[in-house]
Amino acid sequence: MTAAAAGADKPKKLVIIDYSGELEKTWATLILASTAGAMEIETTVFVTFWGLQTFVKDRKRITGQNWMQKMMSFMQRPGVSHRKLSKMNFMGMGPWMMFQLAKRYNVAKPKDLLEMAQAVGVQFLPCQMTMDMFGLKREDLIDGMGEPVGAATALQLMTEADSTLFI
Amino acid sequence: MTAAAAGADKPKKLVIIDYSGELEKTWATLILASTAGAMEIETTVFVTFWGLQTFVKDRKRITGQNWMQKMMSFMQRPGVSHRKLSKMNFMGMGPWMMFQLAKRYNVAKPKDLLEMAQAVGVQFLPCQMTMDMFGLKREDLIDGMGEPVGAATALQLMTEADSTLFI
Amino acid sequence: MTAAAAGADKPKKLVIIDYSGELEKTWATLILASTAGAMEIETTVFVTFWGLQTFVKDRKRITGQNWMQKMMSFMQRPGVSHRKLSKMNFMGMGPWMMFQLAKRYNVAKPKDLLEMAQAVGVQFLPCQMTMDMFGLKREDLIDGMGEPVGAATALQLMTEADSTLFI
Repeated sequence: MTAAAAGADKPKKLVIIDYSGELEKTWATLILASTAGAMEIETTVFVTFWGLQTFVKDRKRITGQNWMQKMMSFMQRPGVSHRKLSKMNFMGMGPWMMFQLAKRYNVAKPKDLLEMAQAVGVQFLPCQMTMDMFGLKREDLIDGMGEPVGAATALQLMTEADSTLFI
Repeated sequence: MTAAAAGADKPKKLVIIDYSGELEKTWATLILASTAGAMEIETTVFVTFWGLQTFVKDRKRITGQNWMQKMMSFMQRPGVSHRKLSKMNFMGMGPWMMFQLAKRYNVAKPKDLLEMAQAVGVQFLPCQMTMDMFGLKREDLIDGMGEPVGAATALQLMTEADSTLFI
Repeated sequence: MTAAAAGADKPKKLVIIDYSGELEKTWATLILASTAGAMEIETTVFVTFWGLQTFVKDRKRITGQNWMQKMMSFMQRPGVSHRKLSKMNFMGMGPWMMFQLAKRYNVAKPKDLLEMAQAVGVQFLPCQMTMDMFGLKREDLIDGMGEPVGAATALQLMTEADSTLFI
């Protein structure tokens, strides 16, 4: 129980727009979301554009209905465990080093943070338009996500939240 | 009329700082702004840094007063119709695929979203400092933009808004 | 004294998450933070991930305890005066042009804006987890920063702020 929640008549609300599929930003999103959830802040993550690649099941290799969608998923391997750094990627060496350092300093992996976030009630909402454009189906995405929504729903949540971030 | 606007004594306010000139982020900005405007959320987009390139008239090729400004505009072709993806650009093939997919799934082009946003009353304010640094004049920018403003005006709008995003 | 502060029973609050170490975003963060401080907006900058590189002392060349941390600091030279553009870097020519243009149009350098921000009371809080992962010690960072904090502290500040930005 934190001071943020204690003594307040209504719970605080946080909305994160998870737009980027990069490793560091995925990490930032999931650390903030899982911590916020644990603090009893009502947390909604609207997952859109490249961000939705993070929420495709790890074992999926190619997604999409047509060749363009398949090609895009092939070049941006989906899944929370396959995110790449935005810089210093060095053929995978950058992410490897980051994971080594994270392990040494007890920072949870994105996959574990995602599970934790879901366990503490963080709601992940996929963007309908992104699903259409990338040809993603509900069964391509990880379990436990909310119904796909549009920009109007995201905006309504945002204007009612105490803090909004575009990550 | 949406629930976000209905029943509230005063309209909700959204401020977006449009900092990036990339295709995906331009799209994200304009989808959110045009939807918010349609929802009767008072929406202001503060256009700064690379973002201002998006609001130069499409037909302009080179802008700026001195060789450095001209060189920078030459390398980052201005105009809402000439934005590039932040990744998977592949000599223009990435954006081409994105436009194909957008068309197939009835997602409006950035240029059309920009017109729609202006039609529903979204205010686009150019950053004075960016105009100075890039040597841009009012006649270089698209019609219908507000007067150039500084960081202080942006901050005042931001601290009065219900949601702020840096995109 | 601005309208944002005047007449209000309590001062407005701004929280910026400074996540990126890029030159343009560092500039954006410091222009907003120093202006907000001057406007008497209570401003806190939570410095995390690549952003923390900006707050390492300019004269430090290599930081970190182990070879991975040292290698990462070597490749991303730390210090507010050594930030690189996210694009058009051209072996340092892009930043050189930006600094020339900034000088000509009286835009303060990031280093001067940082000093100004600290002078007007902006609080810069380093992220504890980032310090651990990059092997940074308090004496590696510039003087005048607050105590290192975690995501929970950042979230509490964010949900009490009038505006939050992830830059």
